[in-house]
Amino acid sequence: MAPNKSFVFNNVPTGLPVVGEHISIKDAAYDSDADCPAGGVLVKSLYASIDPYHRSRMRPAHIKSYQPALEPGNPLIARSIGKIVKSDSETFPVDSLVVGNLPIQEYTTVGKELMHFLKPLEEKSKISDLRVHLGALGVPGLTAYGGLYEIGKPAKGQTIFVSAASGAVGQMVGQLAKLEGMKVIGSVGSDKKLDYITSDLGFDSGFNYKKESPAEALARLAPEGIDVYFDNVGAEHLDAAIVAMNDFGRVVMCGTIADYNTAKEDHYPLRSYDLIFSKRLTVRGFIVSDKDIAPKYAAEHQQRVRQLLEDDAIRVKTWEVEGIDKAPDAFLALFTGGNFGKAVLKF
Amino acid sequence: MAPNKSFVFNNVPTGLPVVGEHISIKDAAYDSDADCPAGGVLVKSLYASIDPYHRSRMRPAHIKSYQPALEPGNPLIARSIGKIVKSDSETFPVDSLVVGNLPIQEYTTVGKELMHFLKPLEEKSKISDLRVHLGALGVPGLTAYGGLYEIGKPAKGQTIFVSAASGAVGQMVGQLAKLEGMKVIGSVGSDKKLDYITSDLGFDSGFNYKKESPAEALARLAPEGIDVYFDNVGAEHLDAAIVAMNDFGRVVMCGTIADYNTAKEDHYPLRSYDLIFSKRLTVRGFIVSDKDIAPKYAAEHQQRVRQLLEDDAIRVKTWEVEGIDKAPDAFLALFTGGNFGKAVLKF
Repeated sequence: MAPNKSFVFNNVPTGLPVVGEHISIKDAAYDSDADCPAGGVLVKSLYASIDPYHRSRMRPAHIKSYQPALEPGNPLIARSIGKIVKSDSETFPVDSLVVGNLPIQEYTTVGKELMHFLKPLEEKSKISDLRVHLGALGVPGLTAYGGLYEIGKPAKGQTIFVSAASGAVGQMVGQLAKLEGMKVIGSVGSDKKLDYITSDLGFDSGFNYKKESPAEALARLAPEGIDVYFDNVGAEHLDAAIVAMNDFGRVVMCGTIADYNTAKEDHYPLRSYDLIFSKRLTVRGFIVSDKDIAPKYAAEHQQRVRQLLEDDAIRVKTWEVEGIDKAPDAFLALFTGGNFGKAVLKF
Repeated sequence: MAPNKSFVFNNVPTGLPVVGEHISIKDAAYDSDADCPAGGVLVKSLYASIDPYHRSRMRPAHIKSYQPALEPGNPLIARSIGKIVKSDSETFPVDSLVVGNLPIQEYTTVGKELMHFLKPLEEKSKISDLRVHLGALGVPGLTAYGGLYEIGKPAKGQTIFVSAASGAVGQMVGQLAKLEGMKVIGSVGSDKKLDYITSDLGFDSGFNYKKESPAEALARLAPEGIDVYFDNVGAEHLDAAIVAMNDFGRVVMCGTIADYNTAKEDHYPLRSYDLIFSKRLTVRGFIVSDKDIAPKYAAEHQQRVRQLLEDDAIRVKTWEVEGIDKAPDAFLALFTGGNFGKAVLKF
């Protein structure tokens, strides 16, 4: 038996998970001498995407949501890039690269019945950074692309506000909106991130929400009002955005990270909902797999964002954490703003 | 000069308007011997629609909303039915009936430049009750029709929840949804109204929100969840509806009467907004004049609802108040549930 470190969910937290209690690194030893399962592969993980949504799976099984609850004792599942170590599959020869949903652990045996979760990673472009397939060209990029175009309906000359603007999704939304001729305002949690989105990513302006409230900042930065709010945060950001919205504005609800670790009774008291009516706003939630997002935009997203990256017309920022032992803390950093860019675990 | 009672807005209330202070009946005397204005008419009002949205116009002029603020000292403007008393217009002969936006007052002189606000009332159907043109065949009916079809997207077998269910809009929404094969649940403010929507209008069920909270009632009446919420109320109703919603549900925001008389800081603290994201709901506000409502549905609404009325396939309930002196109290009754059906003032 060989050691095989795994990022495991132990039991349901009520607030922010605690490492060693609700989540931990455990050894999921595997038999390195065993044969490859018939029709399957053994994958060595190279990179795993670390995302806020993992938190939503750490809940009691009877509470339904858009992804099934994790079973205690099981590893977190993440979009990952791996290398085939053993193979009984013609599609996946040894040493080839794959992308797909895998447990966050060093080695994973994938049986025939689960092989549909893996796809060969075709590296046709000039982009040598594999991690981009977990970011701009991966699920966060498609989330940004589909949400912006399907729900945000970008329009030249209009104003968009993006929260968590230097994050995996936000950095893409802001740059795509800029390319559409919009005025782009971003919210971030540090001055360093603020400098990044305005100096490096070309946002028109932004603010550090830890220093200035979203309501004050939007009044200052968008006196003309905003037309689209791409929401990754919820809570006070959402309330302020609704107040700042122009008639017929669109709120793209991509996440509410401010409340992932709080019970409903502790959620921010949103009191501006009447303006959804009187301003005739559309507030819509989505996840990437919805039928008018990934199926509709995946090919276009790959083609266009790949080209933009090759042309250096958009930039990506990756926050890499090396070594699976650091994965739990990296995950928790997403909720305190400790990351800076798309969080990726390098094994 | 002849007396001419008028329902006047005096100054901006902070809460529920007080009769004699913020609103009152005054004499807007007019010269009954004067000639008719060139190209215009003199109209005697027969009926005026009394609606909650009048409240939203009683605000400081610098606060923008979907209708301009009323100027202090001016009468409320309402959808009305009138009879032409004097005429210098071929379109509107003396004694003919008109429908349009008029001051809530007994007599109104309409100059040539404002004649586009009036339309001849064509009475081609078997419906003899003129008041229906202010309800089912009027703005509330079109509001119900357009909001339900454009945003609610009724689907056979799905469940719709309607608040203020015996009101001008709610009674139409519920009956139209029933005709589409939906399960219909209504919320009302009295047992008498509850009996009306279930016994007379054919709703599947309902509850009296003064006796049972929306959250408890929806858990009891829609254990399968709801797919559409037609919101006339906002506040606790909206929060509970979001919690009860199934994935991809639609919230049709037609009004938030629970908050029309409260400052933002006293609005209900809506804490379920994160579910708009995770259930991928669409929450959209609208008013009847929006480009995908009246322009898109007006002809269809007239044709279809007229037929349904003639076939006795839907019913309408009108709450008539006689005499303009009673208009201010009738208006206030809308906010306490004192009305029962579409509120209409008979002059």
